[in-house]
Amino acid sequence: MSATFREVDQSVTAPQGFRAGITACGIKSDPGIPDLAMLVSDVPCVAAGMFTTSRTRAAPVEVCVEHLQSGRAQAAIINSGNANCATGAVGLRNAHRMTELTAQKLHIENALVLCSSTGIIGRQLPMDNVEAGVAAIEVSREGGNDFARGIMTTDTRPKFLALEFEIEGRTVRLGGATKGVGMIYPNMATMICYLTTDAAIEHAWLKDELKSAVDDSYNMVSVDGDMSTNDTCILLANGLAGNTPLNAQHPDAATFRAALRHITQYLAREMARDGEGATKLMTVHVRSARDKADAVMAARAITISPLWQCALAGGDPNWGRISAALGASGCEVDQASYDIFIGDVQVMQQGMAARYDQNAARAAMAGSEVIVTVDLHLGDGNATAWGCDLTHGYIDENTLYTR
Amino acid sequence: MSATFREVDQSVTAPQGFRAGITACGIKSDPGIPDLAMLVSDVPCVAAGMFTTSRTRAAPVEVCVEHLQSGRAQAAIINSGNANCATGAVGLRNAHRMTELTAQKLHIENALVLCSSTGIIGRQLPMDNVEAGVAAIEVSREGGNDFARGIMTTDTRPKFLALEFEIEGRTVRLGGATKGVGMIYPNMATMICYLTTDAAIEHAWLKDELKSAVDDSYNMVSVDGDMSTNDTCILLANGLAGNTPLNAQHPDAATFRAALRHITQYLAREMARDGEGATKLMTVHVRSARDKADAVMAARAITISPLWQCALAGGDPNWGRISAALGASGCEVDQASYDIFIGDVQVMQQGMAARYDQNAARAAMAGSEVIVTVDLHLGDGNATAWGCDLTHGYIDENTLYTR
Repeated sequence: MSATFREVDQSVTAPQGFRAGITACGIKSDPGIPDLAMLVSDVPCVAAGMFTTSRTRAAPVEVCVEHLQSGRAQAAIINSGNANCATGAVGLRNAHRMTELTAQKLHIENALVLCSSTGIIGRQLPMDNVEAGVAAIEVSREGGNDFARGIMTTDTRPKFLALEFEIEGRTVRLGGATKGVGMIYPNMATMICYLTTDAAIEHAWLKDELKSAVDDSYNMVSVDGDMSTNDTCILLANGLAGNTPLNAQHPDAATFRAALRHITQYLAREMARDGEGATKLMTVHVRSARDKADAVMAARAITISPLWQCALAGGDPNWGRISAALGASGCEVDQASYDIFIGDVQVMQQGMAARYDQNAARAAMAGSEVIVTVDLHLGDGNATAWGCDLTHGYIDENTLYTR
Repeated sequence: MSATFREVDQSVTAPQGFRAGITACGIKSDPGIPDLAMLVSDVPCVAAGMFTTSRTRAAPVEVCVEHLQSGRAQAAIINSGNANCATGAVGLRNAHRMTELTAQKLHIENALVLCSSTGIIGRQLPMDNVEAGVAAIEVSREGGNDFARGIMTTDTRPKFLALEFEIEGRTVRLGGATKGVGMIYPNMATMICYLTTDAAIEHAWLKDELKSAVDDSYNMVSVDGDMSTNDTCILLANGLAGNTPLNAQHPDAATFRAALRHITQYLAREMARDGEGATKLMTVHVRSARDKADAVMAARAITISPLWQCALAGGDPNWGRISAALGASGCEVDQASYDIFIGDVQVMQQGMAARYDQNAARAAMAGSEVIVTVDLHLGDGNATAWGCDLTHGYIDENTLYTR
């Protein structure tokens, strides 16, 4: 798979025809910290989005869903510092206003503009600041890395990647930037991801592929099991590469699919690795579950077990906690036949403690990434989930904010 | 309700005919710390139990389920320090052996003995120690408080209560002891509760009432969302009060029901209050949900939100996190019409920030118990759940054990 694409510098502006820029307009209380980011394509894009399933989702999510009904979009405006959530009719009007201001500036249709917000819940956006910020932003072909910085909240580092590959012999690029899980400064979880490509793609296929990629990446990441009101993942395809639009029958469909899965899984792993207070990335593989749904349930349950997350923080190969999380997950388990590995060390065999070298098990817990593999010997269901450890740092970031 | 019963000293030996005792037999590594407890009734009891739904449940749970098929029991043997879980056929044989040793000592049928274990997962019980311990234990009418101490693990204090009330004019007692949620020394969550009464009760009704009481008490408590492999709640009714056996038609059925609900909710709250690292008890009332199932889902989701648990630790009335946990719970929510209160302070009104006094909200977060009320204005579903805050203490207790 990896031979079909190569990594290139830059993020959302790596594909042809995309420009981005950021500014600091005072939504965040710290002056000078970027809090508004803009992304625009030279031409309208085929577009799709995946959103939080929360029943208290934020106003900008409503606007994205509405604007994506056409299957097209050309630009996006994203603020950090304020989630525009639990803000009622005023908040919805403000989200619409963000897209209108952006559309006016860029001289494009309002319906082609998306918006996202991330930050504190329950406060109205300072619309004068937003208006000044939209006016001030300058977008450029070099703005991709800035864009990745501009959407950060409690993230300790920007998260982005771009890939280059061939479709019909033409060079095509796919870029992406994401902001963190863990919960954002200072209130709420919000994961936001924007993906761009210059490949031409049929809308129905793009939508299906985005869902499939998100299901196996962002939907398998947890820092603390708390789901956000604002989670958003957008894919924009502007077609400037000039290929025959990709669909399921296209001979190069698998290449694009592999690139999309690579970039979403890379960014998802980076989010987990940078979870609030995290010191270790946890990767959990569940193999041979009764079916895929069981495998997903089990893998996610292990990543969100606070007990196992604490053991991970301490480098303690306390596999009883993995086994207990597995048992409690609802996944079918045959107590006489499941195996658990930490790294390469088999710690459980046929549902009981395996004979293993305690030092080897500790060594497998010592690195910056710890891999847990559960083999249920029941069927053909496989899944992988990512998480992180639970530390004092998480508590400290989330105990007091007082602003 | 409270007028129908009064609290009395003692726990599981408060009702007539029950005796209990403990010993330290070396299952725990610290010498002299009690790790084996016995409970016995002078006569066989009508009995029922509720158990973990984990797919990796422990050997003693299997033995309890098997022995309770008759609907009768007379004694129980409980060890702490070792969960006898993930121990395979040997573990199951050892659990059976625990009941056999107890039956021989007490000269009763083996099938009338229950057993429970709590502690480390994946290690075989030291059966020589258990055998010596069973032989050494002396049970007495005064042993109830010792029993409550003997089943403790990371609990900071014993949790017990006994109530006295009248059935057909006769004085009847109901006693109980429980050990903690939070996860036990040093590996696993295990909640264990034994309840005793000298009331005579028909088996079918006792079983139904126990399930109903546990659903509204132990099943609504969380410290960290991790479900144990060993969770057990047993009710033994020896009938020595001599009343006509209670059933749904009995004129005093409501009195017993109220007492059972009082004792289980009291003990459940005490478990939450004593959760690992806990400094505050959280009580969450969800009112007017679409139905009871929705109310339960929402109340539990709020208690297990690590973000809200952190805010609670910091005394920070960060209601956005309550709202987000509610939205993510799966419970039906009308964004335009739900209200949230912290203590008596309304922090959200019709899905938006309410106007409230920040100092009053902080004051409502300052005590040792914080009450959250969510009113969904959708139907007649109500539920209450209990939890605690998330602190450095939880991390410290669970990060390293190394023994």
